[in-house]
Amino acid sequence: MRKDISETTFRVRYAETDQMGIVHHASYVVWLEEGRSSWMRAHGRSYAQFEQEGFVLAVTDLQVRYHKAARYDQAVTVRCWVEKVRSRQLEFGYEIVDAETGERFVSAHTRHVCLNRQGRVVNIPETWQDFLRQPAG
Amino acid sequence: MRKDISETTFRVRYAETDQMGIVHHASYVVWLEEGRSSWMRAHGRSYAQFEQEGFVLAVTDLQVRYHKAARYDQAVTVRCWVEKVRSRQLEFGYEIVDAETGERFVSAHTRHVCLNRQGRVVNIPETWQDFLRQPAG
Amino acid sequence: MRKDISETTFRVRYAETDQMGIVHHASYVVWLEEGRSSWMRAHGRSYAQFEQEGFVLAVTDLQVRYHKAARYDQAVTVRCWVEKVRSRQLEFGYEIVDAETGERFVSAHTRHVCLNRQGRVVNIPETWQDFLRQPAG
Amino acid sequence: MRKDISETTFRVRYAETDQMGIVHHASYVVWLEEGRSSWMRAHGRSYAQFEQEGFVLAVTDLQVRYHKAARYDQAVTVRCWVEKVRSRQLEFGYEIVDAETGERFVSAHTRHVCLNRQGRVVNIPETWQDFLRQPAG
Repeated sequence: MRKDISETTFRVRYAETDQMGIVHHASYVVWLEEGRSSWMRAHGRSYAQFEQEGFVLAVTDLQVRYHKAARYDQAVTVRCWVEKVRSRQLEFGYEIVDAETGERFVSAHTRHVCLNRQGRVVNIPETWQDFLRQPAG
Repeated sequence: MRKDISETTFRVRYAETDQMGIVHHASYVVWLEEGRSSWMRAHGRSYAQFEQEGFVLAVTDLQVRYHKAARYDQAVTVRCWVEKVRSRQLEFGYEIVDAETGERFVSAHTRHVCLNRQGRVVNIPETWQDFLRQPAG
Repeated sequence: MRKDISETTFRVRYAETDQMGIVHHASYVVWLEEGRSSWMRAHGRSYAQFEQEGFVLAVTDLQVRYHKAARYDQAVTVRCWVEKVRSRQLEFGYEIVDAETGERFVSAHTRHVCLNRQGRVVNIPETWQDFLRQPAG
Repeated sequence: MRKDISETTFRVRYAETDQMGIVHHASYVVWLEEGRSSWMRAHGRSYAQFEQEGFVLAVTDLQVRYHKAARYDQAVTVRCWVEKVRSRQLEFGYEIVDAETGERFVSAHTRHVCLNRQGRVVNIPETWQDFLRQPAG
């Protein structure tokens, strides 16, 4: 396992299901975001801090492959890692698995750009680039 | 019917259902908000404008009575009206009904206070108080 | 503190905020439900089991009072307890507080009826009535 | 424009925004689904009917490219079309645009398999394959 992978585990909420009796496919997208938040905290910073400094990470690309459906009350683990850091772009990889059996529900990938408060694309601040790169090193 | 009631009609989205096979009870809360937005537009202003002027309406109380469950793909109508306007407080009433049969899904009530950009409770601006009172008159 | 209160703590997700910069008021409604799920687990059963036996608990009344806004990344604790058990009706009480300071975000109350798979109101199964009553005893 | 494109237009809900002040990226995923529902209705059937016949369309792949952020109260149009129909697999394409200016918010693509009530992958029923193919013809 890559050493920069963070893991966060929680239970599926009832509201996250749909009438198919399984987790709605958009709910996983929210969990990916929670994976990113958790990656930041696991490595010593928080995304809240990033926004307080005047920047946001906007999603530009989202790819999700659905392997197996999660269900209400199951414990799921979101694994998240940094795939690529460039001056203006950032990529995360993910796996969402059954916390008990390890079976994979979803694999996913997101790309982001850094925006300032005026909504313009800017460089990811250097200290944050270092922070994002360091764990894989 | 009171003359200041606005109506907005839309179809139930699949994502709004849960594994009971019916609309999740939190989805109606989002529809109430859509009812308020629609009330504003129906009477010539928009809530977006309210926020642009530097104010927000924060919900302080929510009461929902669930009479009958709505289902995916049904057309639902949200009826919304202003129940009370005070200098610092505002109340809305609602009914959500089946757009075809008129059967009632939900009746509800919300209370709001006006906050400025710093999050302090302030008076609802006079022009907005007038706007909110006028339709019932 | 009542002895049948369950507590569950989690962090606010980014998706749960809105453009006011605070948690959207409908997100708390989902947290209340998570409080009920957690109450069941804390006392040795699960709501999933209830549905597997052929019953659902449908919400008939929801009351929420919003005291203070929660924000992204904060740890929140949902406290949940059973207020009343009748043969066909069930009531829960809730408080959502800041996990660190104890400050109260929300207090709430829900009422439920028991439905069978055909959607008819039926008695809450005796073993479940006992389960729901026992902790307070 | 391909002749089998359906269009559905609605306003952005407040609950669909996040603290960046724009529409949360998971909200568009729900809109895509609404685009599929609307495609079905525009061509004379409904997805509700598909489920009543004992089948579901489960999402297996989701790709979204975010070009520009939508905001609260804007009118957005979801364009949806069938990209490919195979016996066991179905693909949809999408564009979400500003209903007034035509500016593109999102382009997307989803892949689906047909499952029966037991959750097994089965052929899309022939009459539905014909229905899905016909408009492009």
